[in-house]
Amino acid sequence: MVIDLNSDLGESYGAYTLGHDEEILQMVSSANIACGFHAGDPLVMQRTVALARQHGVAVGAHPGLQDLVGFGRRKMAVSPEEAYSMVLYQVGALGAFVSAQGLKLHHVKPHGALYNMAAKDRVLSEAIAAAVYDADKNLILYGLAGSELIKAGKAKGLKTASEVFADRSYQEDGSLTPRSQPGALLEDEEEAVAQALAMAGEGQARTASGKLIPVKADTICVHGDGAKALAFAKRIRAALETAGIKVGSCP
Amino acid sequence: MVIDLNSDLGESYGAYTLGHDEEILQMVSSANIACGFHAGDPLVMQRTVALARQHGVAVGAHPGLQDLVGFGRRKMAVSPEEAYSMVLYQVGALGAFVSAQGLKLHHVKPHGALYNMAAKDRVLSEAIAAAVYDADKNLILYGLAGSELIKAGKAKGLKTASEVFADRSYQEDGSLTPRSQPGALLEDEEEAVAQALAMAGEGQARTASGKLIPVKADTICVHGDGAKALAFAKRIRAALETAGIKVGSCP
Amino acid sequence: MVIDLNSDLGESYGAYTLGHDEEILQMVSSANIACGFHAGDPLVMQRTVALARQHGVAVGAHPGLQDLVGFGRRKMAVSPEEAYSMVLYQVGALGAFVSAQGLKLHHVKPHGALYNMAAKDRVLSEAIAAAVYDADKNLILYGLAGSELIKAGKAKGLKTASEVFADRSYQEDGSLTPRSQPGALLEDEEEAVAQALAMAGEGQARTASGKLIPVKADTICVHGDGAKALAFAKRIRAALETAGIKVGSCP
Amino acid sequence: MVIDLNSDLGESYGAYTLGHDEEILQMVSSANIACGFHAGDPLVMQRTVALARQHGVAVGAHPGLQDLVGFGRRKMAVSPEEAYSMVLYQVGALGAFVSAQGLKLHHVKPHGALYNMAAKDRVLSEAIAAAVYDADKNLILYGLAGSELIKAGKAKGLKTASEVFADRSYQEDGSLTPRSQPGALLEDEEEAVAQALAMAGEGQARTASGKLIPVKADTICVHGDGAKALAFAKRIRAALETAGIKVGSCP
Repeated sequence: MVIDLNSDLGESYGAYTLGHDEEILQMVSSANIACGFHAGDPLVMQRTVALARQHGVAVGAHPGLQDLVGFGRRKMAVSPEEAYSMVLYQVGALGAFVSAQGLKLHHVKPHGALYNMAAKDRVLSEAIAAAVYDADKNLILYGLAGSELIKAGKAKGLKTASEVFADRSYQEDGSLTPRSQPGALLEDEEEAVAQALAMAGEGQARTASGKLIPVKADTICVHGDGAKALAFAKRIRAALETAGIKVGSCP
Repeated sequence: MVIDLNSDLGESYGAYTLGHDEEILQMVSSANIACGFHAGDPLVMQRTVALARQHGVAVGAHPGLQDLVGFGRRKMAVSPEEAYSMVLYQVGALGAFVSAQGLKLHHVKPHGALYNMAAKDRVLSEAIAAAVYDADKNLILYGLAGSELIKAGKAKGLKTASEVFADRSYQEDGSLTPRSQPGALLEDEEEAVAQALAMAGEGQARTASGKLIPVKADTICVHGDGAKALAFAKRIRAALETAGIKVGSCP
Repeated sequence: MVIDLNSDLGESYGAYTLGHDEEILQMVSSANIACGFHAGDPLVMQRTVALARQHGVAVGAHPGLQDLVGFGRRKMAVSPEEAYSMVLYQVGALGAFVSAQGLKLHHVKPHGALYNMAAKDRVLSEAIAAAVYDADKNLILYGLAGSELIKAGKAKGLKTASEVFADRSYQEDGSLTPRSQPGALLEDEEEAVAQALAMAGEGQARTASGKLIPVKADTICVHGDGAKALAFAKRIRAALETAGIKVGSCP
Repeated sequence: MVIDLNSDLGESYGAYTLGHDEEILQMVSSANIACGFHAGDPLVMQRTVALARQHGVAVGAHPGLQDLVGFGRRKMAVSPEEAYSMVLYQVGALGAFVSAQGLKLHHVKPHGALYNMAAKDRVLSEAIAAAVYDADKNLILYGLAGSELIKAGKAKGLKTASEVFADRSYQEDGSLTPRSQPGALLEDEEEAVAQALAMAGEGQARTASGKLIPVKADTICVHGDGAKALAFAKRIRAALETAGIKVGSCP
């Protein structure tokens, strides 16, 4: 049994440092590297690809909205044509660093508001999937488990990776409990680790009411911003290995 | 006998339109397409690649300094590392649109201040040549005839294309007469057309003092901004063809 | 009887020219000058203020979303805090050019998506009104007639100017017919001129069904992009003057 | 006897945090706040002005080159007209936050490459001084002691503050030893504190060869990036007070 652990990396910019890329690279099997629109710059991208390479971690592109000051987290009314071209642009840019260093680009995971909007918007998701396909039809499209993005990726003929979150509770229909609702976050680390194991091992997540529901889990997202996040990522990785679940990138 | 005519294209940005891309594409054999740093945006890049494809014109990347408001024309103290990564980034981004449309990227020509700084700076030129090589070692590097950029490209093992200007006078050492000096520009169109023919046909340019000097001319730069520039480009093309010199992209 | 004619100006950027500022300044009584976020740059702002000054036109700030490639036209989920600070920033920046040239800033009109979002969003409108008030409590806030922005401006104690559109039809509740519906635009210029006269002279607009409804009209927006828009602006101004309605900025 | 201690603040941007503004505000008498071009964004500017106000520290604008990725540290060939308008724009933008919070803008200190270029370039310095004067002729212009910027400020009729650096050695002509030369930095903290005292108390600095030379010292620059810098700033402040030199902003 194998599960992928992924993390967002290369989010520094110029004089600004964000995240603990070196530390988190020791725990994950795939890295989503920012491409210069919401975070990252050419030098940061180059160094982050080199770092991922050193750690033998699969490299993916993490394209976002062109909103540096908002870190790509603010929803924005982009047209499907704009989404297609902004994703293709960013995947191409990151891909150049990847192939220059003798690697192959492994996957694409949209960032922030683009990821969230795509989860619910089929037309936007189709534009993103088309861009990924046109960049390289062998790329794996990462998206929220059960989302429109995963459906659009499959429809386009792409390999997809369904992403789950250890520290978020799920609703009965398999979607994430919105952050505005009570119980959206699993505050207790024990519980979150248990959910990670249930997701990876049995394809199950827990709803806020305590019910177990099926969930497709190809990859678990972990964060690298801050000591607490790093410790939690370490704990998840250890728990998975103890349970006999190998951590490895999606094939 | 064959000579390339190249022009800078795809310089529009969002709501802003610049240049007459459709018209100039009827006259040139290679297009240098802006990559989003000094001009161009993802949608503009996509459309310009499509347009160049329709006209059968060879597509190149035209990377510039990250100075949109200055159109990449203001010299800026970038380090060799920054230059390497900014060129690789932009070539990768444009390359994604090119291969998505079933084409192969043909060349790279640095833009504006980056082009001018590289002409005289060997270390900067080596960084640019390395980026082009690492993007794809079969790309042709366009640079000012006799410049450090051409030398660095050759030293790296790249094919190069020496660029000349029909409407600029040359100094005895083969360099362009600086714009600050009298006689830098050939104001008379007849003279400029004659110089284009002499460059393409005999590898000769005229100095401000009237002397003929040898110049390596693989590609002539023509402009597409405004009615006068378009008419001049048309005239050069016609004169070349009348003289039995074919217009075609560098092999 | 007096009505204001306003137009968006200073929308050029670096090497990019947009609009016919000199021509439109001969027809309007107030200018909304872009402030560098969705369009405009410091040099363009300085020159546009100088141009407006030469023509004796009242100068206002035209702050927009930080989305240059989208020209500030794409809706974006900005928080009230972000809206307050982005408006205050832009008003301050433009205000510096205005007072450096011996003028007083006259008004503020939000641009594009910010204007449209504010029209319907009271909380966003309150943030914008607070920023305008904090910049200078004597500024006039321009907003869509009947909008939340006008209400928030009044509630804050600001003078407001209700803006109307000669070439748009209105619904029975006084709001604009959405562009997605038939009859949203008055395609016939005669009709649009007639509506401008009815708005300015009698405070009435025509609904798509032909009914006359009351509308508060302090200022009519005219466009300066293209020969047709300029001719239309000229026609409106002439019609107003013939009807004995003076064109002048809001007091 | 009074000396000003100044520090660069408000250099965070969006999701990126830089510097320890709260801590350093306890030690300095004037704050140079970034204005959104090389660092800072509208929300950061608003918060930093509020923080400086709480600590009773004099607020100045810290305008820089429009080079966010390079943090305004890369020299760039800007024209005097561009320099004038970029400084006026940024001073106006920051000034709006300052007056909205009931304060008066106190000074302007150019940042990074703009500061360094201005130190040696009289024409550029005149453009900057003119922008500061046109923004508000009562502003104090901060510049390197002995620089062209100070001379241009005086010639324009502005109050000026000559800035010195405790941890840099000086040349016999009163200019800073270039960083490329040995002995440019006073690595020993004792020595740097001693120099701060000598500068503030006796208007003297030490050359690399050990000679004492006269230097005009109205304000000493201290840094707030990192624990070591903070500790050093604290030490300088304590040493000044122990020596009976009051820390206070320039009148």
